[in-house]
Amino acid sequence: MEFSSKLLENAVAEMAQLPGVGKRTALRLVLHLLKQPESQTERLVGALHAMRNEIKFCKKCHNISDVILCDICANPRREDETVCVVEDIRDVMAIESTGQYKGLYHVLGGKISPIDGIGPSDLTIASLVERVAQGEVKEIIFALSSTIEGDTTNFYIFKQLEPYNVVTSTIARGISVGGELEYADEVTLGRSIINRIPFENSLKS
Amino acid sequence: MEFSSKLLENAVAEMAQLPGVGKRTALRLVLHLLKQPESQTERLVGALHAMRNEIKFCKKCHNISDVILCDICANPRREDETVCVVEDIRDVMAIESTGQYKGLYHVLGGKISPIDGIGPSDLTIASLVERVAQGEVKEIIFALSSTIEGDTTNFYIFKQLEPYNVVTSTIARGISVGGELEYADEVTLGRSIINRIPFENSLKS
Ligand SMILES: [Zn+2]
Ligand SMILES: [Zn+2]
Repeated sequence: MEFSSKLLENAVAEMAQLPGVGKRTALRLVLHLLKQPESQTERLVGALHAMRNEIKFCKKCHNISDVILCDICANPRREDETVCVVEDIRDVMAIESTGQYKGLYHVLGGKISPIDGIGPSDLTIASLVERVAQGEVKEIIFALSSTIEGDTTNFYIFKQLEPYNVVTSTIARGISVGGELEYADEVTLGRSIINRIPFENSLKS
Repeated sequence: MEFSSKLLENAVAEMAQLPGVGKRTALRLVLHLLKQPESQTERLVGALHAMRNEIKFCKKCHNISDVILCDICANPRREDETVCVVEDIRDVMAIESTGQYKGLYHVLGGKISPIDGIGPSDLTIASLVERVAQGEVKEIIFALSSTIEGDTTNFYIFKQLEPYNVVTSTIARGISVGGELEYADEVTLGRSIINRIPFENSLKS
């Protein structure tokens, strides 16, 4: 692509850094912004800047939050003896939208994946074990996607928690095997939490 | 979607204003930025801000430019008696990449499309007629996409230019009928400019 403007070229190059956004798409998006009032670009730029600089991660569950303790952890009506372990904040959003779950969360930040160079120390596993060690947690619900990496991560955490007196379960596989949590419909996802099974049982199949 | 952070919610909402970017995609893009170093977001934000505020449109051809007269119009080696009329700056980029065209351009900013409420006065047609009236242009090459709107726009301009002594042609239809210029391969597009035909001839078919 030959650009008649360095300003345009830069904007396209930065847009194309986003995952799944090629140069052509980036150009289309940037030209769209040029056709809209300046205020639209300013709002986008302001929102991204504020988010990246001011956003916090909950010190307890690692969910994204605007304050030190997220709304869920800070809510006295949530059952703090139950912790649902998820990969990503999108999973928290998906489960919250079911309205079926009253416990807390723990956001791992990913799954163990040697191929991608992601080991246990790259995730918030130590912090989860710490929460359990402090004795406030009675049940851990694994809600990772049912992939090899998800199963590996579940099992690694399960082993780490063996010294502690904590019940472990996995959400019921109403969700298609290999399917991503966030794409499950709310009813299926809600039911799979209600019908969770002891983690040991999930190893037998 | 329920968000645990207003900062995140705002960023997703602004991203989702972009054409073809749904809420889910916006969330994915924004979470990606959160995982990358702050510097990546700052570069994106800076590039978009600078582009939107500092970019100029060439006063002669309406191409995007960082200066008052674009590089093409300012280049004394370009043949300024020939003007290729295009819809969009992406078409300029596509034709430039063929290396086959040595004349100047005129960027209309769209096509006449009554359905979309776009009339001649929303485009830079008056400015094109002005260029021709000043007597510097000897040939106009229509390179709009071969749609009803493109043909309508060509014909409208053709009529406006009748009082003047200017040759009009359209690029040869090596490009598939109905096809967008920017998706044509360089060889086809280059050849279709070389083999351009008098505009009157294109009306006979
Ligand atoms: Zn929290
Ligand atoms: Zn120009």
